Order: sequence, then C-alpha cells, then structure tokens
Amino acid sequence: MAVYTQVNADQVKAFIANYDIGPLETYVGIADGVENTNYLLFTGSGRYILTLYEKRVEESDLPFFLDLMDHLSDRGIPCPVPVHDRAGNTLGRLAGRPAALVTFLEGVARSRIEPVHCRSVGRALARLHSASSDFGESRPNGLSLGAWKQTLMQSEVRLEKYDSGLYQEVRDDFLHIAEAWPKSLPEGVIHADLFPDNVFFKDGEVSGLIDFYFACNDLFAYDLAICINAWCFERDADFNITKAGALLKGYEENRKLSAGEIAALPVLCAGSAMRFLFTRLVDWETTPSSAMVRPKDPAEYLGRLRFHRAARGPDSYGLGTS
Amino acid sequence: MAVYTQVNADQVKAFIANYDIGPLETYVGIADGVENTNYLLFTGSGRYILTLYEKRVEESDLPFFLDLMDHLSDRGIPCPVPVHDRAGNTLGRLAGRPAALVTFLEGVARSRIEPVHCRSVGRALARLHSASSDFGESRPNGLSLGAWKQTLMQSEVRLEKYDSGLYQEVRDDFLHIAEAWPKSLPEGVIHADLFPDNVFFKDGEVSGLIDFYFACNDLFAYDLAICINAWCFERDADFNITKAGALLKGYEENRKLSAGEIAALPVLCAGSAMRFLFTRLVDWETTPSSAMVRPKDPAEYLGRLRFHRAARGPDSYGLGTS
Repeated sequence: MAVYTQVNADQVKAFIANYDIGPLETYVGIADGVENTNYLLFTGSGRYILTLYEKRVEESDLPFFLDLMDHLSDRGIPCPVPVHDRAGNTLGRLAGRPAALVTFLEGVARSRIEPVHCRSVGRALARLHSASSDFGESRPNGLSLGAWKQTLMQSEVRLEKYDSGLYQEVRDDFLHIAEAWPKSLPEGVIHADLFPDNVFFKDGEVSGLIDFYFACNDLFAYDLAICINAWCFERDADFNITKAGALLKGYEENRKLSAGEIAALPVLCAGSAMRFLFTRLVDWETTPSSAMVRPKDPAEYLGRLRFHRAARGPDSYGLGTS
Repeated sequence: MAVYTQVNADQVKAFIANYDIGPLETYVGIADGVENTNYLLFTGSGRYILTLYEKRVEESDLPFFLDLMDHLSDRGIPCPVPVHDRAGNTLGRLAGRPAALVTFLEGVARSRIEPVHCRSVGRALARLHSASSDFGESRPNGLSLGAWKQTLMQSEVRLEKYDSGLYQEVRDDFLHIAEAWPKSLPEGVIHADLFPDNVFFKDGEVSGLIDFYFACNDLFAYDLAICINAWCFERDADFNITKAGALLKGYEENRKLSAGEIAALPVLCAGSAMRFLFTRLVDWETTPSSAMVRPKDPAEYLGRLRFHRAARGPDSYGLGTS
C-alpha cells in the first residue's frame, strides 16, 4: 500500500536507459501493491509500471512470473507485458532491488460484481489455463495443503484468540480437506489470486488480468475454487449461486470440466477458503491497530469455509443453472 | 505517503460525471502527498489528479488554494489547473471528504540540483509573486512567528531529548529572530513550500510548480528565504553560495529586491530554518520507528539555523556573485 523504496529521477532515467522505451517524461509512485514498490512511468513511447521487488518476494521466483506474463501475453491473454532490455533481459536491478518494467494495463476493476462479470471471469480463467499449458517453467504452490498444516499447527493461540473453539473447528476442517483432497485432476499454471481487484473490465467483459505474483502450478479446478470464493459471495458472506453458476458456465465455454473436477469442487472451495482465512488471520493479528489501512476481516473467510463444509455437493455451486 | 481513503470505480465515475472530462478509463492511487489522498485519473480527455482532502487540511482553506491555482494558471504560471464542474465549482465531495480535480502536470523533479536550476527556480518564484499580486483572496500564514513561539514553548522536552542544551540555543535564536523580524517589506501570496520535490524541470528550466497547500500571505522575501534553505545547501548541510547567488540572481531577473529585503535575508533565512526544524522535530518524534518511511532528520535544519545565525550579513548569500 505504499512506496517502500524511493527512487529519484536520475535513478529511473539510468534504469530505463537500458530499454528502448524513449526518454522519461514523468513518473509517480503508486499506492497499489501490498508486497512491492510500483511506479507508473510515462516515457516517449507510452506508459509502464516499474516494479521494485521487496523482501516478501523470493528473487528466485521472479523469472517464473515475468516469463509467464511474457508467455501469456504472446498467446493473447490481456496481461502486463514485461519489457525486455537491449540485452534481452526482463529482470534488472534498481536501488539494490530486483526490478522490472511491464506495460501499463489500462482498465478499471469493478466494485459491483454482477453474474455477467462472473461469466466473463470464468471464460478468462479457462483461457488462461489453456494458454499456460505449453509454458515450460513451473513453480510449486507454497500456499497449499502442506503449508496449511504448518500454519494450523502454529495457529492454535491465534484462532482461539479470534474466537473460542475455532481451533478445533478449523482443525477438523483441515483433516477432512486433507483426506478428501483430489490426487489426480488436470493441473498446470494457475493465477491463484484472481480477486476482483486483479481483473479489469470494459463494457462488461474482462479486459485485463494483473498481479501474477502468486501464480504457481496446481489444480486448474483449485484456481476456479479460489474464484468462487473471491467472486460469488455477497458482502455478508452469503453465497450467490447465480454468480457461481455464471462463473462455471463461462469457464466451461472455454474449457470443459471433468467429472472429477466437478465432484471435487466443495473440497477445493473449502481448501481455498482455509488458505485465505489463514493469511487474513495473520494480517489481522500482525497489523498494528494504528495502521492507516485495516486488514480485511478474516470472518468473511470463516463464513465461506463454513458454507463449503455444509455444501451438499457440487450441485450447490449452481452448475448448469444459468 | 499513502492512499488514506479508498474510493472504488463507481465512486470515481459518479464524481467525474459532474465534469466535462469524458469517461473514466483508468485510475490509480498515487503515493505522493503526505497530507491528502491522491488518485491519478485517465479519462477520455486526458489525465487528472483527484485529491481527497484529509483531516490535516482545513476545509475552509480549500477555496483559497483552488482559486489561487486557477488565478496563477490564468496568468501563465505552470501549475495544476483546477477543473470546474458543470455548475462552475472546483470543490466537490467524495467519500465524505472535500475533493477536487486538477490537471495532471507532467514533469520530473530533480534529484541533483545545480546552480542553473536554482536560477530558474528564482525566476519562477518571482513570476509567481508577481502573478499573485492581483489575487483577491488571502490566508494568514499559520506557521509564522506566533506559531513558532507557541511551538518553542511546547518543545523544551523534545529539544532537550534531541540534543542536550538545544532548547536554550533555539530559544536564544527565537528571541533574536522575533526582535529582528522585518515589519514592512513587500508582501503578498507566497508558495511557502517550494522544495525541490515541488518543482518540475524540463531541459534545465522550471516547467511546473505543484503543491500549493501551504500557500499563504507573507513577505515575498520570506518565500525566497525558504527557497535558499531548500535549494542551496548540500546534503551535509554545507551552504553553497554559488547556488544561492544563482537563485537570487534569477529572482531579480523578474522582480527586483528592495534594500530592506536584502538586509533582512539572514533573519528571514534563520526564521525559515526554525520553521522547518520545528515541524521536522515533531514528525521525528511522533513517527513510530516501525513506520515504513523514516521522517527527515531535523539535524539538517539545525545546521542551517546555525549557519544563518553566524552569517555576517546579506553578502553571505552570494548576491551579485553569479
């Protein structure tokens, strides 16, 4: 939510001198991005985002993220395109940090989500999964079952502090999820964080996807489960089956789900809810109350976890309803 | 340094619907601005800054600031131009806060200041003083002698904590400054915060002035003294007389200084150094050490105050040397 690393005009000019993007006209630090420092640059040839990667990002993961955006944009996915310097590199260094330039993606995220947007997101997600199928690199998902187990073991105090009895409840969920987790579903590179903040729309259709810094290899249907949690609940954690039906329908317009994927939806959704419940609980506890921006309330994801636990089966997700 | 108030696309669209600036294409929260929330907007007709005024700004002062920018831009000063809505207003409300749209000023601030830039700043400052001479509104300087006295009285502990013996030293300075403060020099609207951050250059010449939110009525030569402190010291608080000479020479190219103004330079510079010493001391003490951005060290301004105290007279400032 801030510019962690200040760079002055001379530093920016020296950095972009390695790229064929024309002279610097203006730059502003932008407030988006929880993990990294981002500047919006205006140069003789257009608008770019200059990202300085801060400590929370593993430097060794950066080539994967940049190569992935390169690969996806080559295949027509509307995502930021890494700019290559004259030596062909997309990753450079600035102010002691790894840094990269990507094209600035125009567009606005939606604050009010309607089923038509969910359908478009579904289509875009399936396109992304198809487009990544011939991407030659991989990155394990660091926020999957194994990590949840570890987080759970460290979270007894945190969970009990948030709500008495919660540790037992979530531990039972974890045991169920771990047991029911599907072993052999179609997998590949997933976005893993396709929240409404990360999707731009134009005239009701997805026009841009951003923030690939959680992308990793995992089950395609798990990415869909993340989207169900991110797009198909109302403010008060009520599930909107019409939106979920539209999301799944949109997805299946571009990639058919297998019977196994459909059957696994409840457990994948529960797992995804647990993953965000854990990270939000940590943010909730570690953000000082004096901070300018309050972290999101973990209660939202607790509500979603409980919904998925109680789901009768895949038909609870509106498949074939819209 | 942050977006204090989050506004979503629907809110921005509803706000700009009152203005003839075309439809919203994109917007990003920007990290500039310590006091207010700023968004950079791209619309069908160009780029704009949308500012939401936060608590530290007096709402009753806003018409003065906006009218001043309107007035100055009318007279050819390169500053942000407030956009009028269809009813003719420049001040609106958004997310419960006063809000305004101004044009986005392209340009980059300089990180390395050379005498040629000081000369250009001097010229721009004098032009600003002339252009504001027929501005019909006024706003008292809330950070002048009276305020310093009050701050001094509240700062004994703070000053002693920063450096033992400092309270006595600064109190003596204050008494001298208050006694020697000029009573009848040319005055009018001054920028009062024309630091290098707030000045854009193109090809070595000033191309833009921003951040008029400290503008007020005071002595023109005091504005010049603020610039001497802001532009003519090196990183280690060494005074650079060549830069000061260039700044004064540039100023006099557009507005001749009176003998009284020249004679008062040392005390005006000392007063200006005290003003920034006080605000930095407060920021230094009140910013938690966990904050992402450390406030600027007050020591810089203590060094400047000491320099001006020891100045032999106005000739210490390089008048007529370049």
